[in-house]
Amino acid sequence: MSKVVSAGVILIGDELLSGRTQDTNLGTIAKWLEPLGVRVMEARIIADNADTISATVKDFSARFDYVFTTGGIGPTHDDITADCIAAAFGMGISEREDALAQLRERYDESELNAARRRMARIPDGASLIKNPVSQAPGFQTHNVFTLAGVPQIMRGMLTDISYRIKGGVTLKSITVTVEGIGEGDAAAPLAHIEKEHPGVSIGSYPFFNDELRGVNFVARAEDEAVLEAVKAALEDLAAKLGG
Amino acid sequence: MSKVVSAGVILIGDELLSGRTQDTNLGTIAKWLEPLGVRVMEARIIADNADTISATVKDFSARFDYVFTTGGIGPTHDDITADCIAAAFGMGISEREDALAQLRERYDESELNAARRRMARIPDGASLIKNPVSQAPGFQTHNVFTLAGVPQIMRGMLTDISYRIKGGVTLKSITVTVEGIGEGDAAAPLAHIEKEHPGVSIGSYPFFNDELRGVNFVARAEDEAVLEAVKAALEDLAAKLGG
Repeated sequence: MSKVVSAGVILIGDELLSGRTQDTNLGTIAKWLEPLGVRVMEARIIADNADTISATVKDFSARFDYVFTTGGIGPTHDDITADCIAAAFGMGISEREDALAQLRERYDESELNAARRRMARIPDGASLIKNPVSQAPGFQTHNVFTLAGVPQIMRGMLTDISYRIKGGVTLKSITVTVEGIGEGDAAAPLAHIEKEHPGVSIGSYPFFNDELRGVNFVARAEDEAVLEAVKAALEDLAAKLGG
Repeated sequence: MSKVVSAGVILIGDELLSGRTQDTNLGTIAKWLEPLGVRVMEARIIADNADTISATVKDFSARFDYVFTTGGIGPTHDDITADCIAAAFGMGISEREDALAQLRERYDESELNAARRRMARIPDGASLIKNPVSQAPGFQTHNVFTLAGVPQIMRGMLTDISYRIKGGVTLKSITVTVEGIGEGDAAAPLAHIEKEHPGVSIGSYPFFNDELRGVNFVARAEDEAVLEAVKAALEDLAAKLGG
């Protein structure tokens, strides 16, 4: 079995935990990593609390090949992620000229107040991640990429990351949809198909509303030929159940 | 300061980590808990892996007053949450008559195959949580509520939980929106306002697109009078900055 290259995602912000803001960054990062051959193994949504952020970064950095954090790198008092990353790695942190230069592309000197200059505070030795949307950079420390929380800005920063990632084998996936059945109708044959095809994992995802119920079967595998065989088996099953 | 009653949320499913499915259950649970006086302190999104599920449940059950899990209680081979909860608490697990009775409200005997009967496997001593949408029940073990992953079903199950929760003090919140400014314009006075009003936490949430930028200030506090004073201060600030 090929090595799986793993990622962990840390979503930082009280507003995500209160339900005020609906995260979409996890899905964006996961889908962006898939063709690079990197799989998200775990995600955590944590509060704007310095100890929690530092401890989670340290833990994830040790457990996963790559780590992505989103949120908490803006100019206000609740933006503490950069300091927490520095603390997690025992690094110093200070205002950096290269980061200030990027801020100057957006702000003239009168706008570059103390709050905005906070966005140029970067852990020692970190490399900057360009922000084509609003200039204030993200940064990479070891295997941890620290990105903005605003989805448009986060997506922009991803464009300056792919060349830093050494991915593994990519997983291919296929989906077969059957309307008008419940999961329970398919469970036994589904487990059988998975067992018969080593290296394939099959998930079963019901959709459900007052009008219609049905199931999506999603199969994932590294080997395209095996996946084709599974697809045929699932389509047979679908015809039997849905027909 | 009053005791904060805490909750942790565990979202289970490979499909959430791959980005195939966008979770909405965290926000639903958080907003539903807010008027009960319970705050979500952390959420984890984890894979369909038995050891990870058991370990996370055990950890969260010890750290938070209440724990909610979503996902993995359907009839298929990848639905392993009930067994993992039993393992986490060292409980036995078996098919239970009371759970079967709820399934019989939906399925006649011919539909109640081995796969669907799996949904009546409940950890020993757990109390059932009614499912008004599709009948297969959730369950409560100690301080852990195990719910379905499908959002409509999950929401239905919440209706059978509130009387089991002993909440704490509720947090009130207010929002003041300022268009046409960036966060950096407000950072210093915002920190000042927070410092001047103990017991209030103020978050600053930029919104951003090609047409418009602006910031939402969100203040939270237990004490309504203090919150009113903060609102007035934020509105003053907004008038100064936005005007």
